Amino acid sequence: MDNRAIGVFDSGVGGLTVLRSLIEHFPQESFIYAGDTARVPYGNKTAATLQEYAAQCTRFLTRKNVKLIVVACNSLSATAMDTIANIAEVPVVGVINPAARKALLESPAGHIGIIATRATVRSRAYDTALRSIAGSESLHILSHACPLFVPLAEEGFVQHPATELIANTYLSPFRDVQTDTLILGCTHFPILREVIAKLLPDVNLIESGGAAADEVQQILASKAAFSDLEKSIINVYLSDITPSFKAIANRILGIQPNKVEKVTFS
Amino acid sequence: MDNRAIGVFDSGVGGLTVLRSLIEHFPQESFIYAGDTARVPYGNKTAATLQEYAAQCTRFLTRKNVKLIVVACNSLSATAMDTIANIAEVPVVGVINPAARKALLESPAGHIGIIATRATVRSRAYDTALRSIAGSESLHILSHACPLFVPLAEEGFVQHPATELIANTYLSPFRDVQTDTLILGCTHFPILREVIAKLLPDVNLIESGGAAADEVQQILASKAAFSDLEKSIINVYLSDITPSFKAIANRILGIQPNKVEKVTFS
Repeated sequence: MDNRAIGVFDSGVGGLTVLRSLIEHFPQESFIYAGDTARVPYGNKTAATLQEYAAQCTRFLTRKNVKLIVVACNSLSATAMDTIANIAEVPVVGVINPAARKALLESPAGHIGIIATRATVRSRAYDTALRSIAGSESLHILSHACPLFVPLAEEGFVQHPATELIANTYLSPFRDVQTDTLILGCTHFPILREVIAKLLPDVNLIESGGAAADEVQQILASKAAFSDLEKSIINVYLSDITPSFKAIANRILGIQPNKVEKVTFS
Repeated sequence: MDNRAIGVFDSGVGGLTVLRSLIEHFPQESFIYAGDTARVPYGNKTAATLQEYAAQCTRFLTRKNVKLIVVACNSLSATAMDTIANIAEVPVVGVINPAARKALLESPAGHIGIIATRATVRSRAYDTALRSIAGSESLHILSHACPLFVPLAEEGFVQHPATELIANTYLSPFRDVQTDTLILGCTHFPILREVIAKLLPDVNLIESGGAAADEVQQILASKAAFSDLEKSIINVYLSDITPSFKAIANRILGIQPNKVEKVTFS
């Protein structure tokens, strides 16, 4: 048994879609969520800057004595996993490899698409993960950056007709190449799942949260490190607490955290 | 004569619309532009966080020995002018008071609208400036936050039909109250001027850049502090240099800076 919390971190609120998945899978576990809301978004920043921010957040979670760290941010999973693993003294789970594995397992013809932020697409992290797992298997991969999906999701423009127009611009290349499986390679994108599914009705959509939960399950099982707390605790630490955070957090999480506190990651 | 540069700072690229105005007005002046692109955007952050970032950028420009500082960012002009003035040893020009004065001068019926980021609207800085300048004059003021205008402008979705749909959602309240003069209270918004003008064809649009240039003109004249350099120099310092910066900067500025350098503001 290990009653320490699981640490989850992200640039802002997008990682809450992953936290929600983890809470659903592990109702007895406690969680510490670190969101770098003062410096959000990470998607358009360079790798060097992201590695520095990732190191700061990892040291913060290490001081909080977590038993495992979930990097609930594709930009960080694509650019800073080595930095994080070198600092963390506990297992680290990203969001890219689990989603790549799931996509390969479920893709009927190996026509796999990835939508993500610019930083993730530029890193080619999904391409690398997919090709390394697939080995000699034949794959057709198409990646496309959808940077406006992040602010549209955060602003709650989920049902707005403009979102469908923008989604159509972003997603039409996947229709042209007959993508059969699309990885939502940014934690914000599950918020727009409905409009994506409407425009690509025959495409299998892969989200990061569920895939990451499977990997956490394996690690905790192998170390017999599940919690046996009667009541789990969910604490949220943010580098900036904006009035809009609470509305977005409630919409994504559906529950109230036990504590929301402002901190400085440095 | 004073051949030192004019300092201009902003959270990212939006302030380049102000820099462009200043270069047009003062072709013989040199400029140092500081853009905090690693922590952009400022519009959804709290006042305390913005004040800390403003202090860091002001110290940077002070070390660069500028003769005047233009705060080319509405979120900072609304929340951090005192912080900046206390640190700077030179005159400081914001973007709010000049635009408020121009709006009052040009508004036929005193029905003034403001569009801006959330932080600027929340600060009520334009309302305060307008009422303080107008004195007992009767005013009808309506403010509305348009946070998606920033990423739409940065992503170059200027002609995309989705931008007009989103603009229509944001701007229709101004039609309902018969706004005659609208302040574009965010330096990104001049990039979307065409779609705003199309949806509000009878409304007088006020941009920050020109109004700030008028105030700079007065200060430099009163101190006889114009430059007499034969060739002006434009240096750009950014806390993060992304591949997309150059494309956006070229689109907004229309000229190549003499130098673009990555620095840390701290």
